[in-house]
Amino acid sequence: MQDKLMLMIPGPTPVAESTLLALAKAPIGHRTKEFSAIFADVVTKLKWLHQTTNDVLILSASGTGAMEAGIINFLSKGDRVLVGDNGKFGERWAEVCEAYGLQTERIRAEWGQPLDPEAFRAALEADTAKTIAAVIVTHSETSAGVLNDLATINRSVKAHGRALMMVDAVTSLGATNVPVDEWGLDVVASGSQKAYAIPPGLGFVAVSAKAWEAYKTADLPRYYLDLGKYREDAAKDTTPFTPAVNLIVALQAALAQMQQEGLDNIFARHRRQRNATRAAMKALGLGLLAADTHASDAITAVVPPAGLDAEQIRKALQQKFDIAMAGGQDHLKGKIFRMGHLGFVCDRDVLTAIAALEATLQSLGWTFPAGAGVTAAIGHLNA
Amino acid sequence: MQDKLMLMIPGPTPVAESTLLALAKAPIGHRTKEFSAIFADVVTKLKWLHQTTNDVLILSASGTGAMEAGIINFLSKGDRVLVGDNGKFGERWAEVCEAYGLQTERIRAEWGQPLDPEAFRAALEADTAKTIAAVIVTHSETSAGVLNDLATINRSVKAHGRALMMVDAVTSLGATNVPVDEWGLDVVASGSQKAYAIPPGLGFVAVSAKAWEAYKTADLPRYYLDLGKYREDAAKDTTPFTPAVNLIVALQAALAQMQQEGLDNIFARHRRQRNATRAAMKALGLGLLAADTHASDAITAVVPPAGLDAEQIRKALQQKFDIAMAGGQDHLKGKIFRMGHLGFVCDRDVLTAIAALEATLQSLGWTFPAGAGVTAAIGHLNA
Repeated sequence: MQDKLMLMIPGPTPVAESTLLALAKAPIGHRTKEFSAIFADVVTKLKWLHQTTNDVLILSASGTGAMEAGIINFLSKGDRVLVGDNGKFGERWAEVCEAYGLQTERIRAEWGQPLDPEAFRAALEADTAKTIAAVIVTHSETSAGVLNDLATINRSVKAHGRALMMVDAVTSLGATNVPVDEWGLDVVASGSQKAYAIPPGLGFVAVSAKAWEAYKTADLPRYYLDLGKYREDAAKDTTPFTPAVNLIVALQAALAQMQQEGLDNIFARHRRQRNATRAAMKALGLGLLAADTHASDAITAVVPPAGLDAEQIRKALQQKFDIAMAGGQDHLKGKIFRMGHLGFVCDRDVLTAIAALEATLQSLGWTFPAGAGVTAAIGHLNA
Repeated sequence: MQDKLMLMIPGPTPVAESTLLALAKAPIGHRTKEFSAIFADVVTKLKWLHQTTNDVLILSASGTGAMEAGIINFLSKGDRVLVGDNGKFGERWAEVCEAYGLQTERIRAEWGQPLDPEAFRAALEADTAKTIAAVIVTHSETSAGVLNDLATINRSVKAHGRALMMVDAVTSLGATNVPVDEWGLDVVASGSQKAYAIPPGLGFVAVSAKAWEAYKTADLPRYYLDLGKYREDAAKDTTPFTPAVNLIVALQAALAQMQQEGLDNIFARHRRQRNATRAAMKALGLGLLAADTHASDAITAVVPPAGLDAEQIRKALQQKFDIAMAGGQDHLKGKIFRMGHLGFVCDRDVLTAIAALEATLQSLGWTFPAGAGVTAAIGHLNA
């Protein structure tokens, strides 16, 4: 049905009507007091969301652009970096590092498995010469629905002393607790089309004082992604290059809505919806790629058992119920589907998606106790 | 007055209501057939606007990001480049080149003066060893309202044979004729908040086959700005990184409106409004930074004579008439103001701006023949 799309993918996520209307306001000049006031307010709200007093910089770029900026501004050619790789995004950051001539060591796990904090501890402890300049970890690995144990890995990084902790928080920030200052995270990157609940086009990078120290001698080439320029101009409530004005106005509206809900409520909502989704999938006899102990709060990767086809399920959900879920990526293409529960998603949405999934599975001939998925979800949503 | 702003700056430019409503549509998934169909249509329309069969790639970035991509994808460390520098943007591209370790030679002119095509010819002819890898020219220099003689400079580049012709067309494309294929321009960069008449956030790069040849051996590091990735995915009607979905939907609407007007009409409109603006400024006794022979079609830089203050004029226009004009940049700050006539601007807008300027000048005690500005503008608008 026209305009009835329900987005249950890991991004773009649903956008509130008030945010869409803010987006549609006629643009104003970006070199004006009026825009600077909006910009300053947005930065204050971003710091609230990041639980930090560090700089939080706004780029007109996707999350990948933000994460690349977070890496290349604080490192020099030949620097040694440890990159956690247990999915498409971990893999991507290793590729970024290699593109810039960094000495890149991957710490790998299978897609669906979490990164092993012990492997990071061992590598960091063995580095008595302090040659490791950075550790790069994807907090919530979107491709597999895995939440890596950032807190534990980060403790080893802190014990190491030199290495910067760089975090892809693209699908964790605003969904899962990421206390940037409390944990002392040096670089934290995220993107607008995730928990922020605005359309894609903005990337964010939080940068610690320690990272800015490294910036002084970092020698990788950059210009548009040079965060020093953004920092300098942010101090004057402006940006070095024309910002995506309308997206920033929309962001102000979306962040105000998040502040109204409150951080703890936001985290609790994502956790509750994650648990409801997972319980429902199990009750329907579907497999889950990630174990309960390290499941993403933003997205659930579902493994249909033999006899069920992931793409067929997605297609039917889309055609009959106008619900979009994501497919698998790379070697998991066709083998899993992924349900997002991220951003502007209320409990009703999860209930709706599970009910529609039940109807879809039934139409595909899959058998399960009638109402099992919805009942299991309700158990968590009403808890 | 609330929401009565009239943007007469060189960007963001005014956006049509239909485009704003397209922007405000709830986002759809970017990995869908529906989005790919929109994307493919947008690319086709972009090729029309560029008068090219070359690839035209879409980045979520400002015009600077697009231009940086256009430079760094086709060059290698130590490559020799000639950069035209007669304003803020020419200066910027030289800085980009230096940031990446290119051997950067500036061909300079004062802000307000055009680049001398003869200087390019001489440098290129002297380069019998063919060491010049690229010539970088800002077509319409926004900071000074100067239209550089790209056609003539380009002929020297063609005669040289090796060098790539890289063009910042940010405020010329869609305002002034830039026949990419006819002239054989290798790299042409632009940004969404200019003649495209959509809000900022998208950058565009047209790339020739000759530039793609150079890409094969170009060794400057890049990832988010790696145009090869964009080309590869564009062939499948998609993008390597999450695109700014809503801006692309808005772009489709804006480009459709441009196609309805037609390229020749668009160019004629910008030329007519430029001429009307310049004639009015002269009739009001104001100076013009650029001479008639090389005046930008997008923006007019005005030099108030002694006794008039540029910032005071801007402030009064804003406060009394809700019209935003731009100030001078860098050393021209406070010395000029700049009136944009770019993108979704009709003749009525120019007439309005000139009438309001007359009222403003009068209130500041400046004397001129009553109605002189409006009369001079009408002379061109009615021609």
